[in-house]
Amino acid sequence: MTKKRKGLVIVNTGKGKGKTTAALGLLMRARGQGLQTCVIQFIKSDTGRWGEVKTAQELGIEWHKMGDGFTWLSKDVDESAAKARHGWKLAQEKIISGEYDLIVLDEFTYTMHFKWLDTQEVIDWLKANKPPEMHLVITGRYAPEALTEYADLVTEMTKIKHPFDQGRKAQRGIEF
Amino acid sequence: MTKKRKGLVIVNTGKGKGKTTAALGLLMRARGQGLQTCVIQFIKSDTGRWGEVKTAQELGIEWHKMGDGFTWLSKDVDESAAKARHGWKLAQEKIISGEYDLIVLDEFTYTMHFKWLDTQEVIDWLKANKPPEMHLVITGRYAPEALTEYADLVTEMTKIKHPFDQGRKAQRGIEF
Repeated sequence: MTKKRKGLVIVNTGKGKGKTTAALGLLMRARGQGLQTCVIQFIKSDTGRWGEVKTAQELGIEWHKMGDGFTWLSKDVDESAAKARHGWKLAQEKIISGEYDLIVLDEFTYTMHFKWLDTQEVIDWLKANKPPEMHLVITGRYAPEALTEYADLVTEMTKIKHPFDQGRKAQRGIEF
Repeated sequence: MTKKRKGLVIVNTGKGKGKTTAALGLLMRARGQGLQTCVIQFIKSDTGRWGEVKTAQELGIEWHKMGDGFTWLSKDVDESAAKARHGWKLAQEKIISGEYDLIVLDEFTYTMHFKWLDTQEVIDWLKANKPPEMHLVITGRYAPEALTEYADLVTEMTKIKHPFDQGRKAQRGIEF
């Protein structure tokens, strides 16, 4: 791991597009700089994130798809909470390992927004355990205020116009 | 090229981070879906976009760095306009070739914002010549209103918090 840098905590939030794709772009950038990266995907995406997962594999980027992760539509709150905790446990192992320069926790905000994880406990753990030089990227809507206060860089993606408004279907290679 | 889809015109604008990285994420996604992609980078970046260019090369993504492109600080307006037109000419060739599923015009908005290209002429040309099934991604601040009206999907990236505010330096693998 490259030393002597200040690892940033980056949050991409808001209701617009680009939260996950901007994290993917950072992966691409970091990968080109020879940094070690890892993705933990918390939401089981309808579209499976096929495109990006395939490219990540090709690039040798470690990608953990929480195959048993919760979905947007989960009705079983206990089960969702248990799965969120399972994902967070893996994230903690990866973060504390010191093997990575950049870790992406994709759609991680929901675990806190829906109270499956306690926001303050997550932040306190990160403050105590995140390697100082490691970059951490967290994506998802509804980033808790305490998280954005803790973060170094927070960007809100706002939808100005979206083709779904015009009744168009999701496009392969664009939406997934 | 895959047929039977509606190619989207996507604009990532605003003063926040994530405009280019979200476009890179779309490249990664599209690449994993086997789509043919191409990037034309209009602004000669201080940081050279080293990380992403290297990863793009590794993935076989075509990347045209307008090495003689204008910079943010250019004082010679005639020269900047000439260089913008040069980049646009290449973009037109790539778009009209029909060889690509997704083309990214990185930092292209500035060519219109600074009046080096006429916004309406650009849009009229795209309306007449862009293959209907091709996705086009345009990034940069100050997207002209006519462009956002023409686009299918427009996202504004807003800075909520940025480490430069706190006097931190650009980070390798994150900023470039």
